[in-house]
Amino acid sequence: MPLPQLLDHLKKTAALSQVAGLIAWDQEAVMPEAGAGQRAEQTGVLASVIHGFNADPRVPEWIDQIDKSSLSAFDLRNVEEAQRNYDRATRIPPRLAEESAKAASEGQRIWAQARAEKDFSKFAPALKRNIALRREAAACLAGPGEDLYDCLLDEFEPGAKSAELLPLLESLRPGLVALREKIAGKSAPQPLSGHFAADAQLALARKVAARIGYDFDAGRIDTVVHPFCSGNGGDVRITTRTDEADPLNCLYSTIHEVGHALYAQGAPDPYMPAADYCSMGVHESQSRFWENQIGRSRPFMDWLYPAMREVFGDLSAPGPDELYAAVNTVHSGFIRTEADEVHYNLHILLRFELERELIAGTLEAGDLEEAWNSRFARDFGEVVPDPSLGVLQDVHWSIGLFGYFPTYSLGNIYAACLDKAMRRDMPGRDTMVGAAETQPILDWMREKIHKRGRLLPAPQLIEEATGEAPSAQPLLDYLEAKFGALYDL
Amino acid sequence: MPLPQLLDHLKKTAALSQVAGLIAWDQEAVMPEAGAGQRAEQTGVLASVIHGFNADPRVPEWIDQIDKSSLSAFDLRNVEEAQRNYDRATRIPPRLAEESAKAASEGQRIWAQARAEKDFSKFAPALKRNIALRREAAACLAGPGEDLYDCLLDEFEPGAKSAELLPLLESLRPGLVALREKIAGKSAPQPLSGHFAADAQLALARKVAARIGYDFDAGRIDTVVHPFCSGNGGDVRITTRTDEADPLNCLYSTIHEVGHALYAQGAPDPYMPAADYCSMGVHESQSRFWENQIGRSRPFMDWLYPAMREVFGDLSAPGPDELYAAVNTVHSGFIRTEADEVHYNLHILLRFELERELIAGTLEAGDLEEAWNSRFARDFGEVVPDPSLGVLQDVHWSIGLFGYFPTYSLGNIYAACLDKAMRRDMPGRDTMVGAAETQPILDWMREKIHKRGRLLPAPQLIEEATGEAPSAQPLLDYLEAKFGALYDL
Repeated sequence: MPLPQLLDHLKKTAALSQVAGLIAWDQEAVMPEAGAGQRAEQTGVLASVIHGFNADPRVPEWIDQIDKSSLSAFDLRNVEEAQRNYDRATRIPPRLAEESAKAASEGQRIWAQARAEKDFSKFAPALKRNIALRREAAACLAGPGEDLYDCLLDEFEPGAKSAELLPLLESLRPGLVALREKIAGKSAPQPLSGHFAADAQLALARKVAARIGYDFDAGRIDTVVHPFCSGNGGDVRITTRTDEADPLNCLYSTIHEVGHALYAQGAPDPYMPAADYCSMGVHESQSRFWENQIGRSRPFMDWLYPAMREVFGDLSAPGPDELYAAVNTVHSGFIRTEADEVHYNLHILLRFELERELIAGTLEAGDLEEAWNSRFARDFGEVVPDPSLGVLQDVHWSIGLFGYFPTYSLGNIYAACLDKAMRRDMPGRDTMVGAAETQPILDWMREKIHKRGRLLPAPQLIEEATGEAPSAQPLLDYLEAKFGALYDL
Repeated sequence: MPLPQLLDHLKKTAALSQVAGLIAWDQEAVMPEAGAGQRAEQTGVLASVIHGFNADPRVPEWIDQIDKSSLSAFDLRNVEEAQRNYDRATRIPPRLAEESAKAASEGQRIWAQARAEKDFSKFAPALKRNIALRREAAACLAGPGEDLYDCLLDEFEPGAKSAELLPLLESLRPGLVALREKIAGKSAPQPLSGHFAADAQLALARKVAARIGYDFDAGRIDTVVHPFCSGNGGDVRITTRTDEADPLNCLYSTIHEVGHALYAQGAPDPYMPAADYCSMGVHESQSRFWENQIGRSRPFMDWLYPAMREVFGDLSAPGPDELYAAVNTVHSGFIRTEADEVHYNLHILLRFELERELIAGTLEAGDLEEAWNSRFARDFGEVVPDPSLGVLQDVHWSIGLFGYFPTYSLGNIYAACLDKAMRRDMPGRDTMVGAAETQPILDWMREKIHKRGRLLPAPQLIEEATGEAPSAQPLLDYLEAKFGALYDL
C-alpha cells in the first residue's frame, strides 16, 4: 500500500522536524549556557536524520506506485510535497550542504564582528562566499531556463516568481515614498513615557494573547532575546521580550507572534505537509494582520487603553486617541526591525532589489555597501551614517538567507487584502475589535486561511479568500487612510 | 579508519539520546497539555531512529576491524559498550519490542485504574503479560545457562548477578528489622509544623543546590509532579516539587536530584559510553550520599537551620538538634517513596525477592498480592490494609520494569561504603559539612567516581574508591550509629 506507507513516512518525518523545532525553541528559551556545544551536535545529527528521511529512496518508489487520479486534493498535495522535499534533499550534494552550513555559521560570526566594528569590508568576503554557495545550490535545484533567484525564493514562497513579485512589490514604492514625505513635515505625537515593570508587561501580553484566541493549553509564552513562534498543532509556543522603558515592544511583538501561533494552532493536521502553512508570506500576513490591522487599530484602543491602565496604573497618554497616536508613531529611521508601517516595506524593497542583483551577479558583494547607501538615500532621503545602521543591520545574508526578505512585504500586502475582504464580510468588525471580542475574526481566518493549509499556492489562496487577485492597492489604501487621518494630511 | 568511524557513530547516537532525554524532560516540566499526542509520536519515532543507530550493521563490522590490543582502556570500553548496545538492539525482535512497549503503556493505564479501585485482580492479567514479555526478552538476551532475571538486571546494573546480589542485600535484613523494632518502641520527635511558601522552598532549594556544587550555568531547576534529573555534561537539569505543609519534601528531593546531577555534570565526556555513569546503583549512591550522608547529617544542620530560618522566618524546631531529629524521623509506613533510611531498604528487599520469583516462574502473578502481604507482615510487622498501600503502590512492574528495584539498595550500600572511605580520607569532613563548604567532598567524589565513568564494573569501582569490596556493613554501622544516638537505643 504505497499511499499509507508514504503518509506514515511523512508523519514520522514531520514528528522529527517538530523535535528539531522544539530543541531550537529550548536553546533560545530555556537551555543553560553550557549546553550550547552539545546542542549544536544534537541539532546537526537530527538535521542529517531528517535529511535522510526526506531523501529516503523509497519515497519516489512509493510515489511512482500511487495512482494520482484516485487521490483526494489533500493527499495529492501531500504526494507533491513529498516529491518536492525529496528533490530538494537529493539534488543538493552533501558536500555543498555541508559547506553551506559551515559558511553560514562562519558568516554569522564574521558579520557580527564586522557590524560591531562598523566595517563592511570585513564582511564582504564571507558574503561573497555565501552568494557563490547559494548560486550553486540554486543551480542544482533549477529546472531548464529557471531563474536562480526564483529557486531560492521558492523555498520560502513556493511557486513564487520574481517576475511576478517585482511589479507587485514595486507598485508599493511610489505611494510609500509620497506618504513618507508628507508625514515627514508633520510633528510626531507624544510617545508613552514612564517605567513599565517587566512583570506587568508579561501579564498584559498573556491577557492580550488569550483574549485574541491564543490557546494556552496548546502553547506557552517565554522570554527570549529575539522573539519567535515555534511548533505545530497542540504545541505552539510563542516568545516575547520586555523593555521597561517601552511597553509597546513587548505588546506588539507578542501580538505578532500570536498571529503566527493562531495560524499554527489552526492547522488541520499537525503532521501532513498539505496541512502545513501555505508560504512564509501567508504566515507573515497572519502575524501582521493581528499586529497592525487589529492591534494598532483605533477600535482596539478602546479595549487596550483600560487594559494597560489596569496593569501599569496611570499612563502618560490621557486617553485611547492619544494611545492610538502613540502606537502608530511614524519616524524615519535606519533600522528595519524598528520601522513603522509606512517605512517598513521601503526597507524590504531595498533588500529585495539588492539581493536579486547579488544572486544574478549584476552587483558584486564588494560593491554592496555603496549600492545600499545610494538607494537608501533615494527611498528614505537620508544618508546612512555607518554600515551597522545600513548594510550590516540584518543577519539574513550572513547566514545565506536569500529570497526570504520579500515574504515580509508579501505578508503586509496579503494582510491588507484579507483585512479589506473581512471588513466587507463583517460590517460590525470595529465594534468587535473595540471590545476585543475577536472570535468571529479568528473564525473567518480559520475558515479562509488556516484550514486550507498548503492546498493552494499563496496568490490563489488569497484570491479565494478575498475574491480578488492580491495587489498592493489595499495596503496603500489602508496606509493612506490611516496615516492621512492620524497626521492630518 | 574503523575506530574513528565507530566513535563518531557513538557520538551521534549519544546526541540523539540526549535529544530523547530533552523531550522527555520537556514533557514533564514545560510542555503544554495539548502537546501530549504529538509528543508520544515524536518520542516513538526518535526511539526507533536511535534503535536503528544502535543496530546499525556497520557497528559489528567496524568492531571486527579494530585492533583491540592497541586501544586505550577508555576506547576498549567504548567498543565493548557499542557491542553490548548492538546486541541488545538486535537480539530482541522488533515484534517483541513493539509488543512490550504497547504492554507497558497499557499496563500503566490498567495499574493506575486498579490502584484507584484498590483491586489487585484487575491488574494481575496485565502484570502476567508483562512478566511473559520480559521473560521472552530475557531469553533473547541470555547466554548459555544464564539466569533470566540476571539478563534484566544487567540493563540497569551491568554485569551484576543475582547470585552475588542476593547475599549482599539479604545481609541487610536482620540488622534493619532489629533496628526498626527497637525504634518502634520509642516516641517520635516533633515534625516541622507551619506553612512554607512554595517560593521560599524553591529559593532554599536553589541555594542548597548551588552551595553543594550544582552548576546552574550547566543546568536549571523546574517543578514537576515526580522529580527526576536528566541530561549530560553541559546540560543537566533537575526538577523538584513543593508541598506547602512540608518543606522537607522539596529540600531533600532537590538534594537527591542534585546528587544525580553532580555525577552527570562531572562525567569526563558527554557522548562516549565509557564516560557514562557506571550503573544505576552507582548513580543512586550519588543521590543518596548527598541526600542522607550529607543532607541529613547532624553537621549539615548547623548550616541548614539558619538557612531555613532565613527563607521561612521562625521554625517550629527551636534549634539545629531538633531540626536534625525532625529530618530523621523514623516511622513505620506502607509506602516505599515515603520511607525513612531505616525502612527504605526493607521495602526494596521485599520487591527484589518477589520480582525474582515472578521472573523465575516460582510465583504466579495472580498470587502476588498474597505473597506481598504475608512478607510485608514478616518484615514490617504490619498488616497491609489495601493493595494501593501494598502491591499496587509502585509503577515499575506495570511498565515491565523488572531488575530495577535492587539498584536502589545498591545505591544505599555504595553510598555508605563511600561515606566510610571518605571519612577516613578526610578527617575534617564534619567541619566542612557544618559550614556547607563541600567542595573537597565533591572533588573526592569527582576523582573516585565521576571521572571514572564506566571504566570498571560497579563493585570494582567501589572497591578501588574505598579500598574495600562493597558490603552492607558500612550501611548497617552508619544506620545503627545514627539512629541509635537519635533514638537513644
